[in-house]
Amino acid sequence: MSDQMSRITLARRPEGAPVPDDFKFETCDIPSPGDGEVLIEVTHLSLDPYMRGRMDDSESYAASVELGETMTGQGVGRVLESKADGFSKGDTVTGMTGWASHAILSGGEARKLDDRLPPSTALGVLGMPGLTGWAGLKLYGKPKKGETLVVGAATGPVGSMVGQLAKAEGLRTVAIAGGEEKCRIATEKFGFDAAIDHHAHDSAESLRDAVSEAAPDGVDIYWENVAGPLLEAVLPLMNQHGRIPLCGMVAWYDGKNIKDTNQLPSVWRAILVNRLQVTGFISFDHFDRMDEFHEEVGPKVANGEIAYLEDVAEGLKNAPEAFIAMLKGGNTGKQIVKL
Amino acid sequence: MSDQMSRITLARRPEGAPVPDDFKFETCDIPSPGDGEVLIEVTHLSLDPYMRGRMDDSESYAASVELGETMTGQGVGRVLESKADGFSKGDTVTGMTGWASHAILSGGEARKLDDRLPPSTALGVLGMPGLTGWAGLKLYGKPKKGETLVVGAATGPVGSMVGQLAKAEGLRTVAIAGGEEKCRIATEKFGFDAAIDHHAHDSAESLRDAVSEAAPDGVDIYWENVAGPLLEAVLPLMNQHGRIPLCGMVAWYDGKNIKDTNQLPSVWRAILVNRLQVTGFISFDHFDRMDEFHEEVGPKVANGEIAYLEDVAEGLKNAPEAFIAMLKGGNTGKQIVKL
Repeated sequence: MSDQMSRITLARRPEGAPVPDDFKFETCDIPSPGDGEVLIEVTHLSLDPYMRGRMDDSESYAASVELGETMTGQGVGRVLESKADGFSKGDTVTGMTGWASHAILSGGEARKLDDRLPPSTALGVLGMPGLTGWAGLKLYGKPKKGETLVVGAATGPVGSMVGQLAKAEGLRTVAIAGGEEKCRIATEKFGFDAAIDHHAHDSAESLRDAVSEAAPDGVDIYWENVAGPLLEAVLPLMNQHGRIPLCGMVAWYDGKNIKDTNQLPSVWRAILVNRLQVTGFISFDHFDRMDEFHEEVGPKVANGEIAYLEDVAEGLKNAPEAFIAMLKGGNTGKQIVKL
Repeated sequence: MSDQMSRITLARRPEGAPVPDDFKFETCDIPSPGDGEVLIEVTHLSLDPYMRGRMDDSESYAASVELGETMTGQGVGRVLESKADGFSKGDTVTGMTGWASHAILSGGEARKLDDRLPPSTALGVLGMPGLTGWAGLKLYGKPKKGETLVVGAATGPVGSMVGQLAKAEGLRTVAIAGGEEKCRIATEKFGFDAAIDHHAHDSAESLRDAVSEAAPDGVDIYWENVAGPLLEAVLPLMNQHGRIPLCGMVAWYDGKNIKDTNQLPSVWRAILVNRLQVTGFISFDHFDRMDEFHEEVGPKVANGEIAYLEDVAEGLKNAPEAFIAMLKGGNTGKQIVKL
């Protein structure tokens, strides 16, 4: 153990795709843990797409990395010195160490690892990406046997978790990945029913044809971590009542190749960053609840608790005119034609 | 009762906003009901924004109206002749009569009305629009006391239902409406806490400032029936975990003023038409389930039931390069840096 540690800081904010000069390798003294803290020697560092967002200074779900600050990130390491209850020298732990050889964490920020599995699994399959796939599929994907799931970056730690869990639930699983080798891994290692090499398609339309062929019954779950042309390809193939768990949009992280007039990336980003839920629905789907609605709301309309307002046009002949005006907001209240 | 009936058919498909010549007023013989059917004399016809979509020949959640066909629509009327069980001459009923003075409906397509309320309420407050507001708020808006709801077209039958139900649940309710008179109605008749006249704002930014002032704690539910500049105004004001029930996008129905490069309207339309659910989420929000995740998935990783793949770069110094490559899809499997 040297008295010096190394770390990588954010040297400047990237324009588009990050380049090496956006980062700076530095050395500094190893700090000492205070009360309730542990000093960790990092053995494995996780690199994740979300880190790209932290390099910008725009508002996101977590604070930006400041210029000159150590790049944020999860690491695994050994405890060198512990002043925190429950941690001893030599323990293998994980926590937000940043891109650094050593880190100080409070006891609450560090988590001890099960020694039966390789420590690096705490960064991937059993770490944040694995949890993302597991929780998002359960809560927002709501997989049902016989349905079809499409996932991009399918050999990555999120995509491969989602694909395997969905397959185990009896779904048809379609992988999108970049290159023949990844496609082979997707089907052979991760059990996807089909894999599509997006490098082999130079347009969203061409990609759509391939997805359509691989998903002959349409798509029920599109796991969104890529966006861009993949979203464009898959969206028209979605079945009714499909779900789109949105946890990333790597194709748009750079902010490049987005036309100013295209509002979709910023809306998609707002949905992601603020964890919004957008649900399309049609009243016709809920006509089976008409009786329940009338039981609950009918008496309130009758006693005036729920007010209503009607705008009445006279005569069938005037229906087109009233309709045209209504679309422009010319009516006040529910537009009715009295015959 | 004459032997002739009148109806309004679709004469041609509108380009942009509908004009009178898109419709045709016609007369024809009154048909006779067959077995199981009723003949209805229509007294009230409902006009609803969704009808605009039926005039196009693009795929939607329901079939287009064909050229020369009677415009689709819900009506209320009296039974003139019944050959259906459970219906008698003189009954007041509602059903999809179309834009016509008379209609034949099967017994299953007609619904008898409660005579204690004006029959026209079956088209608005207690009809499809009211049901839309009631079911959508309950199922997708998920209102919680103390939250803030924003709704456009707030004096319309959907918006006014949503606003009143939300207010009764203890939410702050903000109306968007066109004109001072509608704003007065929104607060005085429908009890909205604030009302904003969108005619008084010539940009999404200006509208946003007004919404922001009326919703000082941010927006938890944005009831989407308008889209366009209103969506642009409200979206950045959404609180985390906000909900956007999407049941209309009247600002975009015409297909005009949408730039080809703007993918948002077509994505929004796909979400609506196919009743999709898009949910943004962040794994950090689910860290409290890490133990549950490990209990369920950990053993499967240990026994190989869940496969995983790691791409390991060596040395902290190489982290930036590995990160840059990963964003371009250069890694295969979970990207880790071994220190």
